[in-house]
Amino acid sequence: MIKVGIVGGTGYTGAELLRLLSVHPEVELSMITSRSEAGKPVSELFSGLRGKLDLSFSLPDFSGSGKEQLSSCDLVFFATPNGIAMESVPELLSAGVRVIDLAADFRFSDTELWKQWYGIEHACPDVVKEAVYGLPEMNRADIANARLVANPGCYPTATQLGLLPLVRAGLVSGNIIVDAKSGVSGAGRGANVGTLLCEASESFKAYGVPGHRHLPEIQQGIERMPGAGVSPFTGDLVFVPHLTPMIRGIHATLYCTVNDHGIDLQGLYENTFNSESFVDVMPVGSHPETRSVRGCNQCRIAVHRPQGRDTVVILSVIDNLVKGAAGQAIQNMNIMFGLDEMTGLDFPAVIP
Amino acid sequence: MIKVGIVGGTGYTGAELLRLLSVHPEVELSMITSRSEAGKPVSELFSGLRGKLDLSFSLPDFSGSGKEQLSSCDLVFFATPNGIAMESVPELLSAGVRVIDLAADFRFSDTELWKQWYGIEHACPDVVKEAVYGLPEMNRADIANARLVANPGCYPTATQLGLLPLVRAGLVSGNIIVDAKSGVSGAGRGANVGTLLCEASESFKAYGVPGHRHLPEIQQGIERMPGAGVSPFTGDLVFVPHLTPMIRGIHATLYCTVNDHGIDLQGLYENTFNSESFVDVMPVGSHPETRSVRGCNQCRIAVHRPQGRDTVVILSVIDNLVKGAAGQAIQNMNIMFGLDEMTGLDFPAVIP
Amino acid sequence: MIKVGIVGGTGYTGAELLRLLSVHPEVELSMITSRSEAGKPVSELFSGLRGKLDLSFSLPDFSGSGKEQLSSCDLVFFATPNGIAMESVPELLSAGVRVIDLAADFRFSDTELWKQWYGIEHACPDVVKEAVYGLPEMNRADIANARLVANPGCYPTATQLGLLPLVRAGLVSGNIIVDAKSGVSGAGRGANVGTLLCEASESFKAYGVPGHRHLPEIQQGIERMPGAGVSPFTGDLVFVPHLTPMIRGIHATLYCTVNDHGIDLQGLYENTFNSESFVDVMPVGSHPETRSVRGCNQCRIAVHRPQGRDTVVILSVIDNLVKGAAGQAIQNMNIMFGLDEMTGLDFPAVIP
Amino acid sequence: MIKVGIVGGTGYTGAELLRLLSVHPEVELSMITSRSEAGKPVSELFSGLRGKLDLSFSLPDFSGSGKEQLSSCDLVFFATPNGIAMESVPELLSAGVRVIDLAADFRFSDTELWKQWYGIEHACPDVVKEAVYGLPEMNRADIANARLVANPGCYPTATQLGLLPLVRAGLVSGNIIVDAKSGVSGAGRGANVGTLLCEASESFKAYGVPGHRHLPEIQQGIERMPGAGVSPFTGDLVFVPHLTPMIRGIHATLYCTVNDHGIDLQGLYENTFNSESFVDVMPVGSHPETRSVRGCNQCRIAVHRPQGRDTVVILSVIDNLVKGAAGQAIQNMNIMFGLDEMTGLDFPAVIP
Repeated sequence: MIKVGIVGGTGYTGAELLRLLSVHPEVELSMITSRSEAGKPVSELFSGLRGKLDLSFSLPDFSGSGKEQLSSCDLVFFATPNGIAMESVPELLSAGVRVIDLAADFRFSDTELWKQWYGIEHACPDVVKEAVYGLPEMNRADIANARLVANPGCYPTATQLGLLPLVRAGLVSGNIIVDAKSGVSGAGRGANVGTLLCEASESFKAYGVPGHRHLPEIQQGIERMPGAGVSPFTGDLVFVPHLTPMIRGIHATLYCTVNDHGIDLQGLYENTFNSESFVDVMPVGSHPETRSVRGCNQCRIAVHRPQGRDTVVILSVIDNLVKGAAGQAIQNMNIMFGLDEMTGLDFPAVIP
Repeated sequence: MIKVGIVGGTGYTGAELLRLLSVHPEVELSMITSRSEAGKPVSELFSGLRGKLDLSFSLPDFSGSGKEQLSSCDLVFFATPNGIAMESVPELLSAGVRVIDLAADFRFSDTELWKQWYGIEHACPDVVKEAVYGLPEMNRADIANARLVANPGCYPTATQLGLLPLVRAGLVSGNIIVDAKSGVSGAGRGANVGTLLCEASESFKAYGVPGHRHLPEIQQGIERMPGAGVSPFTGDLVFVPHLTPMIRGIHATLYCTVNDHGIDLQGLYENTFNSESFVDVMPVGSHPETRSVRGCNQCRIAVHRPQGRDTVVILSVIDNLVKGAAGQAIQNMNIMFGLDEMTGLDFPAVIP
Repeated sequence: MIKVGIVGGTGYTGAELLRLLSVHPEVELSMITSRSEAGKPVSELFSGLRGKLDLSFSLPDFSGSGKEQLSSCDLVFFATPNGIAMESVPELLSAGVRVIDLAADFRFSDTELWKQWYGIEHACPDVVKEAVYGLPEMNRADIANARLVANPGCYPTATQLGLLPLVRAGLVSGNIIVDAKSGVSGAGRGANVGTLLCEASESFKAYGVPGHRHLPEIQQGIERMPGAGVSPFTGDLVFVPHLTPMIRGIHATLYCTVNDHGIDLQGLYENTFNSESFVDVMPVGSHPETRSVRGCNQCRIAVHRPQGRDTVVILSVIDNLVKGAAGQAIQNMNIMFGLDEMTGLDFPAVIP
Repeated sequence: MIKVGIVGGTGYTGAELLRLLSVHPEVELSMITSRSEAGKPVSELFSGLRGKLDLSFSLPDFSGSGKEQLSSCDLVFFATPNGIAMESVPELLSAGVRVIDLAADFRFSDTELWKQWYGIEHACPDVVKEAVYGLPEMNRADIANARLVANPGCYPTATQLGLLPLVRAGLVSGNIIVDAKSGVSGAGRGANVGTLLCEASESFKAYGVPGHRHLPEIQQGIERMPGAGVSPFTGDLVFVPHLTPMIRGIHATLYCTVNDHGIDLQGLYENTFNSESFVDVMPVGSHPETRSVRGCNQCRIAVHRPQGRDTVVILSVIDNLVKGAAGQAIQNMNIMFGLDEMTGLDFPAVIP
């Protein structure tokens, strides 16, 4: 059994970790911390866990070696706001604890880029160097050996999986446009007027058009995709996120120009993800719905070439809280600890 | 492994059976029938099952002994419209197959009552006699030995569990009012204008006030509750169902008069459901949310006595597709086949 | 033209006043105050008003006689939280300004009751005496002459209109049960976790079962209904509000015992509301939907007597922000200023 | 008063015409036809119109001159499925009746294009020639004199208004990508499984990626935009519509390449729509929400140039049933009959 701790368990990402880990057969949930809710039973905050998880929030304690300490865990997940994990991760690593950070602290190898987009000086640039970007479909081997995994953002997961086959093969010319739509849980569990039911339901809007933090993350991912000898992508990346009136789900609609009309797009996608448990290339002509992945760790992709023209349209859907956050984190944990990648994640979507 | 067949798998109840049975560790899903979709892969209709269930709809075939026949199953679930199962159940029973009917065909011991409310002459009144009403919290022992279980309706499940402690103890005088609210999936997957998103979302309404088929089912349940020597309930039962703009969930608000002010209501409820895996009596003062049982087989109950007066208010929530249909059917199956009652049903709610 | 000011215009009630008053042909919107948003154009907060209302929020100024002062208005609406209006209303009345308070400050003639339920000592008990409860269908004449109108709560409006015909005629014996359901806008525009889309959508729950502030308001209304020589209602009043996942709408399901089986209920209701512009008694057997009054000032009522028994079930729907708040306030204004009651309110519901 | 008839009033477009025309000060609603509902009061189907519209559905009768005939109207709106209006319009025109068709029958000047995308031979190619495409912001003068107006599609309205300033000035090079999102009412009031609340809520998907009928309509519009001497747009037009879980609203996100970096985009848009009552160019940096136009005839547009690069992003929102259908039709009627364009349409959005 893997002894697991969670730092910051009161948001939606933390709640989803709890939901999934509470039934993971190889995990012993040892502690979950929250400064604001310390002492309160977890199931009091998340009533869906009543009877399934007998644990109370505790204050985070990173040092020491008692059984109440995070340092006694095999693995610690950080489900904290950006900029928190970097303050404590070095200490945990020194204590021999492995770490998966679900925030952005360790996603950028370039700490200047981090500072530019997140507005904070990085607290441990040395540790950043050893962090592995946790998108298993791109770098599974590195994850297996990592002490520290930076779990990808939700939009970047759906987008990178959708673009991987084309960009890795150097097939994209011109610009890439990422028109992405997210359910409201992506905005977190904070009390904001903008995400009240009365503000966000029965409405649809774009946000962050001038610049969103997931843009440089996607950009970095695209730069890493092409193999040796393959032309890198040199166009502009345009990323426009939208808020759609539902709880869960991301739908990325990706547009790029592929001048080669002889290429078998469907075959390319199927071959790329052939052996992947969590990426489903749908049949030609499909339009994946976000609910087809609701509550599960799948990413479903369809690839189109409307009217046989140069522009290729890729549709990629995930559940932002599962493959876009907690589920992928658990997938990374499974890889890090040598388990079957599907352990605890092998169930269908919740429809209807 | 229990070899299971499902008759009528294209509605929401069938879909939920598939979702839950696809991960049940003791079940081998052998066949699922549909006249309209025969030949089509199940996952084509329900995209959430892609990769999780490799089965196609077949035409129902009740007789014969080939491996493709329903008669070769250990257990057959009927997820058909009312009045269908009664045509085929006798034949299956004769073949040694046990049956759980999720429709209403076998819920009434009085076939006249069936005819009055469902408008059809019963096809097999003899078989009705041996059918066991499948509410485990009321008659678990009978279910264990049953060849044929009539799975309760969704409203009747939430209502009977909420009323059981009081009515069994003969504490209710006056009338009982059942004000119940259901998500739209209770209306089924049929193409009706009234359940279109544009008609049923952003609106709330009562329906069936003059008389709803679940009224006599609840009435029958209440009549069976009191033990020997306990005063039966003799008042009126008023049942008003409402449609609420969400997919899943039933909230029953139950009002009854309890003149005994010395009674410890909370204690009574906790004692009644003490050993039940799927009934959760919440702490004093609670207001259970339907989402606290979304996707799982729990029923959560809170009991109130506002201002210390005579009227007691019981709040009872279930997921209509799980504890109100497919989940309870699987709970019944577990009991019938000697499994731990929670097998395949031991997971938390999906929140958010 | 009536010169109108609004105090506290940043909540949903204020926003709805703005929406309706911006097209009222007899109103000149003179000022709208907000401490937090002073200086900001109203249409910046409420984008739906862009191009329709050229006004900025100002700081409240109750005294003085300049044109920027509230004291220069003919009428001031308070759309403030409970306990705010009572601090300033006396001053405005002294300056000859008439006032409609949409909060609860002046709804109770008994200031002890106010204090008990709202937890604040009343600031102007003398002024309370002259306040008129603004339910036109009950006391139109008093409203016409009032300097100060207490606009009813949303639940009390739907409930009192539904009960009026029966209680006024002294027909109710036993208890009255009010099972009421509200859209989320009733909880206001404050930033609370509980009303986030991800918490409140796809779920249904009761709240305030032990005691809700609208209970004594309804109780007071019921006490005032019976005419001279008519038996007052002496039973218990039970009030259970619920939160339903939609923005607008209240559905009150009312249960009471009417022992007289000879009474023509439908006729009684039709006669009572015959000459009312904003109460629609629906045909026998109807189930009014909340969307049938979405955005408009109607109340629609249906009366049932299931199975011809003693319990009568009344269904009453309103839009909580219109007939339950801003619309009714404008209806009251029309009455106070001698206008046709439908002025500015004569439009159909927004369906779908 | 304009004597108005509506053919086919049982869908959402018809319902919205009724809602808006019932309060239009210059319109006398004379008749509304429906084959399926003939004889039934309109308010029985659309309960929101109870008390506001005393009219029953009648069978369509196009000839004759009695007061019950469509031929006695000044104007007839067709709110019928595609391919119906073209069968009857010639007769009405001959009778001196002016016509606005809300379906696609007269939108294409090229009847071959019509046949290719709609699969039906056109019934009156001669009449097509005189039809005017009813987008007032593009060709107001022609509409004023038209006998027959083809009301634009919902997606084409939002898209063309968003592209007009750039394409008219010949500023677009490369391709244009239209990523559009619609509420479910765009799919109509037909009983389809795909638009049930349980199928379409809490989910998001693209549809019609291989080819959607609004693609050639937008293409035709773009071809007509450039003035004399201006370079036409020669790139590819990519159009991907999506279904978003809400009732009303369209959000078009438009991507195109503008190589001229000196151009003042905000100024260009403001100048273009300066004198338009129903197009609102929002301030720099805005993200229009669809709810900001809910129930009203506005189109709100924001123009972005992320990171100062070549790709311009235009956000354009309308209510699909108002500016995207019934509201625009009434705007066209106002123009045709010499009324102020805002008559009957001058009200704010319904928020929340």
